[in-house]
Amino acid sequence: MPSKDVVAMHPLDPLSVSEIPFVADLLRQHTPLDLCFNTITLHEPAKTELLAYFESTGPKPDRKALVIALEKGTPQVHEAIVNITTSTVEKFAYRPGMCPTISLEDLEMVESIVRSDPGVIEQCKILGVEDMSKVYCDAWTIGFDKRWGAKRRMQQALMYYRESPMDNQYAHPLDFCPIVDTDAQKVIEIDIRSVNGERTPIPNKQYNYLPEFVAETYRPDLKPINITQPEGVSFQMNGNEVEWTGFKFHIGFNAREGIVLSNIRYADPQEGGKDRSMFYRLSIAEMVVPYGEPSAPHHRKHAFDVGEYGMGAMTNSLKLGCDCKGSIHYLDGVYSNRRGEAVVIPQAICIHEEDAGILFKHTDFRDGKCVVARNRKLVVSQVFTAANYEYCIYWNFFLDGTIQVELKLTGMLNTYCLHPTEEAAPWGTEVGERITAHNHQHIFCLRIDPQVDGVNNSVMQSDAMPSPHPAGSEENPYGNAFFCQKTVLKTTAEAACDYNHETSRTWDIVNPSKMHPTAKKPVAYKIVSRESPRLLAQPGSLVWNRAGFARHTFWVTPYKDDQLYPAGRYVPQTSGLEDDLEGNFNIITWTKEAANIENTDVVCWLNFGLTHFPRAEDFPVMPTEPVSILLRPTNFFKQNPALDIRPLQAQGESQYAFENGKENGNGEVTEAMKKCCV
Amino acid sequence: MPSKDVVAMHPLDPLSVSEIPFVADLLRQHTPLDLCFNTITLHEPAKTELLAYFESTGPKPDRKALVIALEKGTPQVHEAIVNITTSTVEKFAYRPGMCPTISLEDLEMVESIVRSDPGVIEQCKILGVEDMSKVYCDAWTIGFDKRWGAKRRMQQALMYYRESPMDNQYAHPLDFCPIVDTDAQKVIEIDIRSVNGERTPIPNKQYNYLPEFVAETYRPDLKPINITQPEGVSFQMNGNEVEWTGFKFHIGFNAREGIVLSNIRYADPQEGGKDRSMFYRLSIAEMVVPYGEPSAPHHRKHAFDVGEYGMGAMTNSLKLGCDCKGSIHYLDGVYSNRRGEAVVIPQAICIHEEDAGILFKHTDFRDGKCVVARNRKLVVSQVFTAANYEYCIYWNFFLDGTIQVELKLTGMLNTYCLHPTEEAAPWGTEVGERITAHNHQHIFCLRIDPQVDGVNNSVMQSDAMPSPHPAGSEENPYGNAFFCQKTVLKTTAEAACDYNHETSRTWDIVNPSKMHPTAKKPVAYKIVSRESPRLLAQPGSLVWNRAGFARHTFWVTPYKDDQLYPAGRYVPQTSGLEDDLEGNFNIITWTKEAANIENTDVVCWLNFGLTHFPRAEDFPVMPTEPVSILLRPTNFFKQNPALDIRPLQAQGESQYAFENGKENGNGEVTEAMKKCCV
Repeated sequence: MPSKDVVAMHPLDPLSVSEIPFVADLLRQHTPLDLCFNTITLHEPAKTELLAYFESTGPKPDRKALVIALEKGTPQVHEAIVNITTSTVEKFAYRPGMCPTISLEDLEMVESIVRSDPGVIEQCKILGVEDMSKVYCDAWTIGFDKRWGAKRRMQQALMYYRESPMDNQYAHPLDFCPIVDTDAQKVIEIDIRSVNGERTPIPNKQYNYLPEFVAETYRPDLKPINITQPEGVSFQMNGNEVEWTGFKFHIGFNAREGIVLSNIRYADPQEGGKDRSMFYRLSIAEMVVPYGEPSAPHHRKHAFDVGEYGMGAMTNSLKLGCDCKGSIHYLDGVYSNRRGEAVVIPQAICIHEEDAGILFKHTDFRDGKCVVARNRKLVVSQVFTAANYEYCIYWNFFLDGTIQVELKLTGMLNTYCLHPTEEAAPWGTEVGERITAHNHQHIFCLRIDPQVDGVNNSVMQSDAMPSPHPAGSEENPYGNAFFCQKTVLKTTAEAACDYNHETSRTWDIVNPSKMHPTAKKPVAYKIVSRESPRLLAQPGSLVWNRAGFARHTFWVTPYKDDQLYPAGRYVPQTSGLEDDLEGNFNIITWTKEAANIENTDVVCWLNFGLTHFPRAEDFPVMPTEPVSILLRPTNFFKQNPALDIRPLQAQGESQYAFENGKENGNGEVTEAMKKCCV
Repeated sequence: MPSKDVVAMHPLDPLSVSEIPFVADLLRQHTPLDLCFNTITLHEPAKTELLAYFESTGPKPDRKALVIALEKGTPQVHEAIVNITTSTVEKFAYRPGMCPTISLEDLEMVESIVRSDPGVIEQCKILGVEDMSKVYCDAWTIGFDKRWGAKRRMQQALMYYRESPMDNQYAHPLDFCPIVDTDAQKVIEIDIRSVNGERTPIPNKQYNYLPEFVAETYRPDLKPINITQPEGVSFQMNGNEVEWTGFKFHIGFNAREGIVLSNIRYADPQEGGKDRSMFYRLSIAEMVVPYGEPSAPHHRKHAFDVGEYGMGAMTNSLKLGCDCKGSIHYLDGVYSNRRGEAVVIPQAICIHEEDAGILFKHTDFRDGKCVVARNRKLVVSQVFTAANYEYCIYWNFFLDGTIQVELKLTGMLNTYCLHPTEEAAPWGTEVGERITAHNHQHIFCLRIDPQVDGVNNSVMQSDAMPSPHPAGSEENPYGNAFFCQKTVLKTTAEAACDYNHETSRTWDIVNPSKMHPTAKKPVAYKIVSRESPRLLAQPGSLVWNRAGFARHTFWVTPYKDDQLYPAGRYVPQTSGLEDDLEGNFNIITWTKEAANIENTDVVCWLNFGLTHFPRAEDFPVMPTEPVSILLRPTNFFKQNPALDIRPLQAQGESQYAFENGKENGNGEVTEAMKKCCV
């Protein structure tokens, strides 16, 4: 490994195109096994070690890689830690019974397998299809099927037909589902649906969205909107580190979580310009998309797009003016393929600024004295494709210190065919003739590793409560009293809780050792989510078992270096039952003992998302549907942290003072004052 | 009245600068009373009459004005309907016991009254202030004070001190509150707060936000973002009517509601380009801001900024590049002053387009075949100043047929002084030294007068429900079943309901006579609000009585021409008690009898907003806090209505087809196809 690279890199930088094959080679030299690589990714330094380095009290941590590999042609999984700095394999262990993520290569392989499988060919013939080049499938992990459990790695092939190579396959779903052994590379079963003893004809009407089919209907009337930054952008990049008007953080990327933001600080002029830490690490650590149609094989449709496939590996290469508009800085994404080679996704991460409307405004109604400043956001974004769906992820930083995590859902509905005797209701919507799109939920688990002015934080649940005293009582004579009830969550058991709309519930991550000088409350960042639907699957259901993290809106755990993924490190083909865990711990097991989470290093897990009852308007391609959460400074800054943003307008006496060079409150006219009215 | 004007005007156009004095003159000729005008505004035509005109089955309705006037120097209210077309006074009636909105002139007058009142001067002396030019007040309507009821019109003067004319008064609140008779123009009482027998010293630390004070701290680092439309905008204005890529509507404006959008239609290419109606009229019909500090005089702080002051009259004149960015079309706002003259607010309404991110995207993971189209919104906006607060209101129309109502709250916190022995908690936050900002809520009542493909609509409550059958049962073998439970709201009593987060509750406004051809559900627009906090004041409290509309999230009423304002037409100094109504009916009385609301002309009332526990960051000027609701087409369009938006990118085979002039599905290459990749 070229030592120069290692020296220059930030400890959280993703593995580079040279590091990935270097790691693969080291491991090949280490073991005689014929390995097929599943994951070669940065093994992030231990937190204590990395913080010591950040605070210049410890050395730069060694670069290390986590490797997950399979013995070729088998489901036997091995896990390694490779030290790149020292060129040594530190750990190499067999992980029996574990199924790692399904790779894009695994998915792509399934389509060719089913096309040439005699059983599948026979089923297609029954449905009237002879030309197998018109048969397509979206491979999904099997989820969990008790017929096989986790003994072999399997995928289910959701089958479709295309009239032409450009035709929309989601308009032509087929009624059977082959099961493929990923390692043996063959169809091992075909689940065939029968409705009253009959097969379901393929929906044959075309519903297309590609320009080939719809270009003639295009509206002529939209005039271009140009967004430019002639003087350049306001952020600076140093490798993967960003600085933007006070904010500083590191942008990581890995095959599983996609974008990871770390070491988020703010150079606070109200505290002498010193860096104040807010978050150690933010990522979308898991997600689940359970479908609500009760009959087989749809019960297996509940994709964990992080833990089963990887949001990073499925990331799109972005295009200027299409995915993002304005002055863009891009970062590539890098991950490994099965041969241990680096795969580069050019322009995987988009970094840009956007105008964000009014930041603050006030007019004195007496004299029209007025200031208006404009807000803007720094956006760090990616888009990934999970078979039919597209997820656009935006990490938005605002001038007032707010951080927003916004997801926009688009792409294609997962569809299924309706038998002529069937209705779509109540489990779906008939979005095209005899095409049903099933009810489903999207639940995203945001992992928030806070560092609010330091590592030791507590979490307070905030509930808006009316006074307990009735109107007319001495304590509440007019009946208008209400307050914010703050409850310190003391243990992991107490912290497993749900959003409560009745009390507009939020959660404050506080530093109990640092009080706000004026507000006399501990400095805090508040988690605001109004879009946290409950998991609608029943307790004891397959998805309830497997997606344990989704049983509550919110969790808090004591920080542990190896607790990154709330559904477990190995998600595919888990049953979710505890006796099936075999060391693959998840948030249910982590929180089993009521561990202390007060004034210590904690991690918060917030579930948010939406319940989607498909509409005709979502077909054949869905308009984006947004969902978002906020992290808001709450008595974190001494006062409005955006007060030092130059306003674009100052009217009335204020305007007059500028234009005429009049004195300010201290009898001075400064250059800044003269320039502040644009 | 110049008949030419009347002929050219749209029946919903606001009264013009020539119509307002014309109406005032007609009324002065009609009555010997010495009138002081409170309101001269468009009296909108009856709905049946206007619809007949729109549908060319009836004549153009006469232009009429509603006039509210006071006998000068008294609280005696008279109400008139003046027909401008025929130059006649159609109605002139005395309205005993009613208090009309407080005008800006009323508010401004109070400050000069209190400054010269001997009692106020004495109180200021006690607090150490000799120079009365440094004493300011925000006049508020008194709300309701049982000492006087509604027999005279009164305002409460929230008192402040300023060290210099530019100083922020909200940093120096005084501890007493004069009560002013609006018509007699004198102080009639001074409510003085005592804390353990002591007065509260004026907080004397300065917290400023105007450039004079903070310019020297401005950050130098933000580079300009330029937004231009070199080919012009994509919307057309015809007077107050807008057309934008399918959407058509009329923009009205009045002193009370500000922007009113009417006759909202969409020229639907999926139905042969014909105009399909969606909404007859949309406006923010009322709002209330109850404060939660239980002691007097704060119980009187619950401003109804629509019904007590008027969002239109308080509207800001907007500036390009400051309030709005890009290519802007402005409309002026016009209302009347007390002399019956027209007051013009230049550039009161901003109309512009904004890029709105990805509209839809899908990539075929096999071959990278991809389309991305960009969304944009048409924004119709206003900003109004309600003493300390600023409300920015955005009516956003999106290419996918979604209409969003977004409010951004900014401006100044209402503040009060703390006695040295007092703490701000639990009723407020100490945002500056000895300055408390009290807990409060902002509840906005959106009046939705739907016309979903016709006048006769029904409303269905939609609740996401798990299957009632347990996991393992025959009906729900895997436990994953869930569905959307639709409940038709049949009467006003059933329709008075609350948001339910447990079921992600939404409401569908449907046309039961028009089924979606594919989805086989009635065409609908869905109301989505996740931000509808409950009213925290107790039942029986003053604000609960007065803001009856806020007792539930949602209401539906049968349409009546005169039911525009859910807290009543005359809001100031109402007790909210029924025996006090005297013909001033509100939503509580309208919904008393369980009237039919099924398949008829209905109006929906949606409350949304937020509960605000002030933060230090909200001082001295608040960063905008957004809150919004959506109206989404739901099986209204045949399919995605934005499918005819030209994508900005088409990759893979699709790209290849364009670049090489290959055939489309029908063997043709069209010009549109060639142009679709930018």
